[in-house]
Amino acid sequence: MRRRVITLLTDFGREGPYAGEVAGVLLSRAPEATLCEISHEVAAHDVREGAFVLAAAAFSFPRGTVHLAVVDPGVGTARRALAMAAGGHLFVAPDNGLLTLAARRAGGPVEVREVAAAALAAPRPHPTFHGRDLFAPVAAALACGLPLEDVGPPCPDWIRLPGCEPEERPDGRLVLPVLHVDRFGNVAFGLTRADAARIWPGLFSPPIHPESADGPAPFVRTYGEAARGQLCLLWGSSGYLEAAVREGRADTRLGVRPGDRVPFIRR
Amino acid sequence: MRRRVITLLTDFGREGPYAGEVAGVLLSRAPEATLCEISHEVAAHDVREGAFVLAAAAFSFPRGTVHLAVVDPGVGTARRALAMAAGGHLFVAPDNGLLTLAARRAGGPVEVREVAAAALAAPRPHPTFHGRDLFAPVAAALACGLPLEDVGPPCPDWIRLPGCEPEERPDGRLVLPVLHVDRFGNVAFGLTRADAARIWPGLFSPPIHPESADGPAPFVRTYGEAARGQLCLLWGSSGYLEAAVREGRADTRLGVRPGDRVPFIRR
Amino acid sequence: MRRRVITLLTDFGREGPYAGEVAGVLLSRAPEATLCEISHEVAAHDVREGAFVLAAAAFSFPRGTVHLAVVDPGVGTARRALAMAAGGHLFVAPDNGLLTLAARRAGGPVEVREVAAAALAAPRPHPTFHGRDLFAPVAAALACGLPLEDVGPPCPDWIRLPGCEPEERPDGRLVLPVLHVDRFGNVAFGLTRADAARIWPGLFSPPIHPESADGPAPFVRTYGEAARGQLCLLWGSSGYLEAAVREGRADTRLGVRPGDRVPFIRR
Repeated sequence: MRRRVITLLTDFGREGPYAGEVAGVLLSRAPEATLCEISHEVAAHDVREGAFVLAAAAFSFPRGTVHLAVVDPGVGTARRALAMAAGGHLFVAPDNGLLTLAARRAGGPVEVREVAAAALAAPRPHPTFHGRDLFAPVAAALACGLPLEDVGPPCPDWIRLPGCEPEERPDGRLVLPVLHVDRFGNVAFGLTRADAARIWPGLFSPPIHPESADGPAPFVRTYGEAARGQLCLLWGSSGYLEAAVREGRADTRLGVRPGDRVPFIRR
Repeated sequence: MRRRVITLLTDFGREGPYAGEVAGVLLSRAPEATLCEISHEVAAHDVREGAFVLAAAAFSFPRGTVHLAVVDPGVGTARRALAMAAGGHLFVAPDNGLLTLAARRAGGPVEVREVAAAALAAPRPHPTFHGRDLFAPVAAALACGLPLEDVGPPCPDWIRLPGCEPEERPDGRLVLPVLHVDRFGNVAFGLTRADAARIWPGLFSPPIHPESADGPAPFVRTYGEAARGQLCLLWGSSGYLEAAVREGRADTRLGVRPGDRVPFIRR
Repeated sequence: MRRRVITLLTDFGREGPYAGEVAGVLLSRAPEATLCEISHEVAAHDVREGAFVLAAAAFSFPRGTVHLAVVDPGVGTARRALAMAAGGHLFVAPDNGLLTLAARRAGGPVEVREVAAAALAAPRPHPTFHGRDLFAPVAAALACGLPLEDVGPPCPDWIRLPGCEPEERPDGRLVLPVLHVDRFGNVAFGLTRADAARIWPGLFSPPIHPESADGPAPFVRTYGEAARGQLCLLWGSSGYLEAAVREGRADTRLGVRPGDRVPFIRR
């Protein structure tokens, strides 16, 4: 049988023990699994960024991979714990919106359950570290073959992250949330190709540009088609609308950062 | 047979080649082992932080795991190299105090030996990179089944890190070292539950608060029990006394950082 | 059969999805391979630093390892993709000089081919993410046993990084490029032991010191031989000439950073 992969996506950072503690629990409870870090460098408590990175990376992994995602500002409160099947992958995460974009990207039906099987958790789970004592044991159990339905009851009202989708204003402007800025300064907006096909049927490139841009930004296939230093738009590698500046930074050019809502106007 | 796990804990950082060089040696000499990074982001030369992270993370891993720990400001001097068995785990590290907290946390007896088997090292070990040329080969050999006693003779006088334990002052104050500050600003102090049970038998929560705190800090089970912005104390997930501010940072509130010694007074 | 190792060396950083996306593709296409991160923290678009880290770390891994290296400022332009066999290892990288130092360090003959087998790439490779859609599939195919010659035709005119070697000036000075500064402030210069043996036959230590140094810097075997705070020279663990300050930083002492060219004079 093919080894099962468990990925890790957290805001723990790498400088402390938390990432190691979680990995240790996974290897103790699922000794045959292969661990793979997506990132421990999500900004602290930034559920939106975590949701973006998880959705962008998860579906590159083999079908059947278990994705353990912990960005959990509500640890120690009554927020629920979730397990989800989507697109042939499994996910374990707190119920705070972290699964929103992965569920949407999966496309097909998703099954979300609330973790209710206390027997899965560590014997005395520490109330401030569910990543280690609750989510990791559940992920390990799924990687070892536990059926999703044994985790707990269906949870149809799981929390979706608000403000991740395009907003069409009556005045014709389209307001797009900034979902992510990568280290090169490229800006990913909350508009997918599927969104664009719905709004502008038949067009490959959405006929818009950021209102604040210094003149129209050409829509390109790749950075090399833009002039050096020019702001351009393209479909990014994760399937979202992306703004880029060739050999420059689009985030500083546009003056935006994750969480901002940016108005676009018709070209 | 179950795959053996080798963990890595260093201050090499991730931006240079050192972490990769060590991993390469481990995979070359122990091709069946599973590598797992605890952290390469210990602050440069910060033995105290390394000791804390190692102790906090090591025992989450499966029994029999080999923990390779290299925070080694004394590389190139005559400091000894150690191998230790503690709590069913194996450790390889320079003799500079790095194993202090792991040995204490293991609880039971520990066996420490000085690495003396020159045959274990690389043919011409480089004098500035024992992590790659000495510690990694020893860790790989242990992961491949080398008995601990074959590493070298017992080393009872290995170096313990000073100043990691609570200090009871004659005036009734308790002075606690700051062992670690995590990325969320939570502060771990050098007081374990076992220490507290010895000092205040029968009490779950130590009846103290930081002298510099702006009024008493409640002792809670989890962050959710504190008011927003309130300083609180709790038993942290690593078993140490922790100061936290709900949706804030305890390190800036208290004005402390790792290595500081903080006076506590009776509540 | 021994598991094949695939290493990763990129400038993607760890905070976004790119590192995870590439790892996912590798595990999907080479499910038996063992992944090992050398670094995702090469400075953005810094081909020189990537070349140094790759060359320093690659040959610690087992023979037959596939090294996937992506520092790719030219993604989306017409730059070629390369696969190389050198020193018993395989490398996949963009044709921008990234393989220069690994090829030199391998010592013996190297075989470089241009990736031309379109069937190896993802079905619709995204023009801004060849790391995921082109280089990773090629690396996975090689790890699964694809012969190098099946990747594409020989590519003898692959791009070498300029300015990485010592320059002997007519006035007797030797100008050395700064290849790398590590997190401890140690400076690696572009002068190998082999270079030194050619220039000064029979000498272990090159009879030079940095022109800007505040007096001669002794040549030592290891940091412990220098006085505290003293600038010294030594053969670094990667085989390059290194400047160090015991318990200090050589980069700030010399006022240099990667890419600088530093004149040395005869001692």
